[in-house]
Parts: sequence; structure tokens; C-alpha cells
Amino acid sequence: MDKPRNDIYFTVGPAKLYPGVVAYATEAFERNIPSISHRGEEFAGYYRGAASKLRSLLGMPQDYEVFFLGSATEAMERIVENCVEEKSAHVVHGAFSRRWEKMSYELGRKPEKAAVPEGHIPDLKNISFSSDVELICVTQNETSTGGELRFADIADLHQRHPDALIGVDIVSSAPIAEVDWSAVDMVFFSVQKGFGLPSGLGVLFVGPRAMAKALSLSERMSIGSYHTFLELKKYADQGQAPETPNILGIYLLDKVLADMEKIGVRALRKGVEQRAEKLYSFLEGSPFAPFIKEKDGWSRTTIAAEIPGGSARLIEHLKGKGFMLGTGYGENAEHHVRIGNFPAHTDEEYNALISALAESASALP
Amino acid sequence: MDKPRNDIYFTVGPAKLYPGVVAYATEAFERNIPSISHRGEEFAGYYRGAASKLRSLLGMPQDYEVFFLGSATEAMERIVENCVEEKSAHVVHGAFSRRWEKMSYELGRKPEKAAVPEGHIPDLKNISFSSDVELICVTQNETSTGGELRFADIADLHQRHPDALIGVDIVSSAPIAEVDWSAVDMVFFSVQKGFGLPSGLGVLFVGPRAMAKALSLSERMSIGSYHTFLELKKYADQGQAPETPNILGIYLLDKVLADMEKIGVRALRKGVEQRAEKLYSFLEGSPFAPFIKEKDGWSRTTIAAEIPGGSARLIEHLKGKGFMLGTGYGENAEHHVRIGNFPAHTDEEYNALISALAESASALP
Repeated sequence: MDKPRNDIYFTVGPAKLYPGVVAYATEAFERNIPSISHRGEEFAGYYRGAASKLRSLLGMPQDYEVFFLGSATEAMERIVENCVEEKSAHVVHGAFSRRWEKMSYELGRKPEKAAVPEGHIPDLKNISFSSDVELICVTQNETSTGGELRFADIADLHQRHPDALIGVDIVSSAPIAEVDWSAVDMVFFSVQKGFGLPSGLGVLFVGPRAMAKALSLSERMSIGSYHTFLELKKYADQGQAPETPNILGIYLLDKVLADMEKIGVRALRKGVEQRAEKLYSFLEGSPFAPFIKEKDGWSRTTIAAEIPGGSARLIEHLKGKGFMLGTGYGENAEHHVRIGNFPAHTDEEYNALISALAESASALP
Repeated sequence: MDKPRNDIYFTVGPAKLYPGVVAYATEAFERNIPSISHRGEEFAGYYRGAASKLRSLLGMPQDYEVFFLGSATEAMERIVENCVEEKSAHVVHGAFSRRWEKMSYELGRKPEKAAVPEGHIPDLKNISFSSDVELICVTQNETSTGGELRFADIADLHQRHPDALIGVDIVSSAPIAEVDWSAVDMVFFSVQKGFGLPSGLGVLFVGPRAMAKALSLSERMSIGSYHTFLELKKYADQGQAPETPNILGIYLLDKVLADMEKIGVRALRKGVEQRAEKLYSFLEGSPFAPFIKEKDGWSRTTIAAEIPGGSARLIEHLKGKGFMLGTGYGENAEHHVRIGNFPAHTDEEYNALISALAESASALP
């Protein structure tokens, strides 16, 4: 067996495992959880347990459904398939929002977009789409750039487009993002970021207006097969998924949510926010500038910084000290670092990271 | 912590974990495998390792691609989306083959079918579809009924429909099924059956004719978005998936495949076949009759038997002795048991199971 690694993962996802996950996984394997039936009462208990804890942690209304998918990427596809006959609209401010727009096009729909150059966040208050768009897609936290949008502004966009459904990507901001449920119809995330779990599981919440749209659309066109909202709901009502889902992932999510419930979402947010403030405050006084130009668009959970002279040496240097940072995304791979700031992290780890960054800033010419 | 369970899972999937999986998983968590990047060289090594071991274990030609999906159910959908403009054909002999046909219809295609009543296997040599079907879907092992088809007969069907693509479901027969690669274009399975791994990962093999069809189809219609064969190949060539995949699942698959390679597929098959023979031989002399009427259609890996007076009491009785059996599928839930016979099982476990079944046959009136 290779040696255990004591590195601390500050990557934006896959990320540091939430405390307790290793013990929960060991227990799961000892108890044969991966062998239990996905059609039995025991699994239904984990499904319902995870769903109801998510509902309570995120303050989600009772009439929103909880569906489990393979990934957040799948959620983006299913939202378009189920809710768009012709026109979707996209607020584009980085690679993941651009990908959602591209998906709509690939799925034969007609996407329109409002885009800002990367490194900026869009001013949602001044964005308007055609009056007949059926769905507005908003990437609330853009993992590729480190830009975070406010739910108050998403609510404003919603009020100016009351007939359009709103789909919101909180992939890398859950459970920190303060979702305004009155302004959103669909919200999704993946578990390998803010929940500190192994990848291979996406979570999608679907509200009543989106369920109704899927139903009416299904009467005149194909909206998919085993993962339509209608099929997902039929099984979710029994604590099941249409396919054999990631049983272990749902079990572990249920366990982590129970621990998060004990701490409370307010305390989780406060911890993340305090660490983000410290890190941004350091970055402002360092050669490493936050990539996002608008201060009020600085993501609390995924922080991207420009590294003069390139990020590869810094990443390698910190790796040598046991601090694992992410590269930039896509074209920015070699110019940025991206730093995850999730509930799994501790203040001590963040202080150590900031010291190491400070040391690197002077050590690396 | 709840007590460990020493039950032996004879369910058809999720099934008994392959020996070593618990240790590999523990090691994976200790080594932070769930935190590594899905875009880095380490993960690409596991992806390529698993892919090349699958290729060698199953004797798959070099020009077939290996794609990882969320489930085998997803594979059924993607095959139709990528390879059917209008007409698919389906050999229906149980719930899973029927579901594939239904999916094609739900996806807006026109499926035609050749069906036999459940409890029988179709005579592939006497089945013909319209000359213009683009894809023939064959469920080689029907998990719902315990019926297994022969690749020689699939090859015969292929020869009589040389222009149609052939997609084959070996969900619950891999790696035991002797795939005839000259007769198939796409083959898929899920890992929670014959590979004894946690669920949440499907594997799809795609040959050159199917890749070419997806490409030509993509030029005139939507074939999906992030999981088109074209997109999957673009990433697979780099040892990656388009989304963040089930990293832990792929890592564990690579480990189990390394162990299976050491034993060799012939020895794995021989073990499964000998256990199947013993079990069927017992069933024939017992009140529990194999559900499939044609002896040469008896599945080696998923064995369904009719239980006079209902299966619930038998399942409960055996559960009390630590033997976990599956119920029947769908409408047969309460009339059948289904018994998995996978590489993870030992001869000793099977002998114990058969003794327990024999004891139950006399104990339960």
C-alpha cells in the first residue's frame, strides 16, 4: 500500500473531505451498505434522510423535489431538456455558464445570452432577455473565475421576467449560498465541493413551476427518458431513483448532512466568510490579485487569483509543503491559482495556507 | 456505530463486494483519492488503467472506446440518442429489454420489437427486423427473468442485419459473458453486479461503426450534449470524462480488475459456471423451478426461480440465516427469488446457500 498523504486539499473540487467521511465510509463498507438494494426500505431511508436534511439546511420549501443525478453537469442538461421548448437565456461570466449555453444549443434549443468578459461579474439588475425566453440560467458561483452573484440580484432578474423559469447553479457555493427560493425554480450542486464527499453524485432541486413545465412539454415533445423530472419524481416519491444510483454517495451525504445540521448553516457560513475575508485581505496586500475585479463579486467559496509570472511554480512550491491548490481554469490554467474554501476547512488550515502564500510571495522571485 | 453485518449477499445487484474492495476503499480514503483532480495525471492513470484492463480481460479490440457513465441505464439512453435517427429494434424478453424499447420511444424514435412472453428466451435465429432499422438492441442477460442469450446467436442476428448497429446489454453478465466483438458495436454494464463494486458507475464500450454513426448523425440532429460519443471520446483520449466522474468508483474498478487479471477470465468463468450448474441441478430436484423454461437460456450469473406459495417467507427465512436473496422483479416480486452468481462468490458460500435452500424447502410448508 502506498503511504497515506497528509496533504491539505484547497482545491475547488474535488476538494478536502468533510471531517468524518473516512470513518463513515469505513463503517459503510463494514455494514455492506454498497450491497443493499436500491429498491428496499433501508436505502429509501437514506434517500429520504438526505433529502429532508438538505431541505432543512437550505430552507427549501416542501413543494420542491430532491433528485439525485450522476453529476451537476447532468443537471444542466436535464434542466434544458425538461424546461425548454425553444428559447433559453444565459448569464455568461465564465466557462461553466458558457458551457450551459452551449448545451442548450447542442440540445437543439435557441439560447440567448448576456455575457461579460471573464474577470468581471455581470450586473444582473441591468440585464434583460427577450420576453419569450422560457428559462433563465444563472451560474450563481462561477467556479472557473471565482465570481459569485447575489440572490437579491437573481430575484430582481426574476421579477423582471416573471414568466421565465429560473435555473441556478450553486455547484461550488452550496451549502453556503443563501438561496432565495421565491426567485428560483431549479437549483443544483455536486457533492465533491462544499459537502466534502467523493464525486459521482449531483443533486437537483425542482420547484412546482418547473415540474408543471416538464409535464406540459412532455405532452408535445421528448423531454428525455429515464431522467425526466416526471420519471425522477415517480421514483423519488418512493425514496428511489429510476436507475441504480450512487448508493454509497447518498448514504455518505446523509451522514455529512447530519453533522452539518448540528453545527447549523449559519455557523458554517460564518466560518467560510471569515476565512474568505482573511484570504482576500492577504491577497490585496500581496502580488497575487483576485481575478474578479468587482469586490462585491468575490466568491466566498472558490477564490481565483492571478499569479504574476505564472502559477505553476507557486502550486508546485506549496505542494511541497503539503498545500494542494487548484490551477486556473482553461486558458487561465497557468496564470491563476484557485483556492477552495469549504465547510471542511478549519481556520487553522487557512492561517497556515496564508502564511505559506506569504512566504512564497517573497521566496519566489 | 451499528454492528457490522456478516450477511452474504446473493442479490443480483447491488451484490456482494469483490474480495479486497473494502481494503482498497479504506486505502483510497487514507490516500485522499476522492480529493484528487479529475483533470490531473494521477486520475488519468486510473482511467487508462481500468480501460486497458477491461480491454484485456474482455478481449476487446483496440478500436473500441471505453466510456464511463453514471449507470447502465444511462448507457441505454446514450446509445439511442447517438445512434438512432428514426428506427431502433428491440429483442424483448423481460423488464430491462422492454425498458430499452420504451426509452427509444420516449426519445422520439420509432422502436420495433420482437417479444417473447416472460419466462422464455427469444430464438434470435428466427427473428428478423425491418431492413432499415439503424440499431438492434439485445439484452444478452435479462436480470429480471434470469434469461441469457448466446453471442453465437447475436452474431447470427448481426449477419442477417449487416447494416444495423448492434447494442448489447451485459449489465449482469460481465465479465462472464464471452463477447463476440465481431458481432457488436456497443456493449455496456454496471459495476455493482459482476465486478462487486459500489453502484454509481456504468461502463460503455463503443466501436468504430457506432462512433461513425454518431458523427454523421450529429451533423443533422441533436445527439445530446456533454455525453455524446464525440464529447466522451474527446475527454477519454486524455484519460478524462466530460464531467467530474465517479473518481473513487473508477479507482476501485482499476484495483478489482488487477485482481481479476491475476485469476484470469477463464478461471472466473469456470467458477461461476460450476456454481450455476450446482444450483440449477439442485433447483431441478426441488420445489423451486427455474423461471426460464429453455434450459439453454438459463443465466449463469442471475438465476430466477419460481417459489410455490410465494417467495417472501423463503427470503425472510434465509435472511435469518445470513443469506440475502433478491426478490423477483416487478410483477414477479412475490413469486420469484433471484440469486446472483458472480466472481465475488466462493464455492463454499454457494454450497452453504444450496444447503440452506434445501433445508428451507422441507422446513417451509
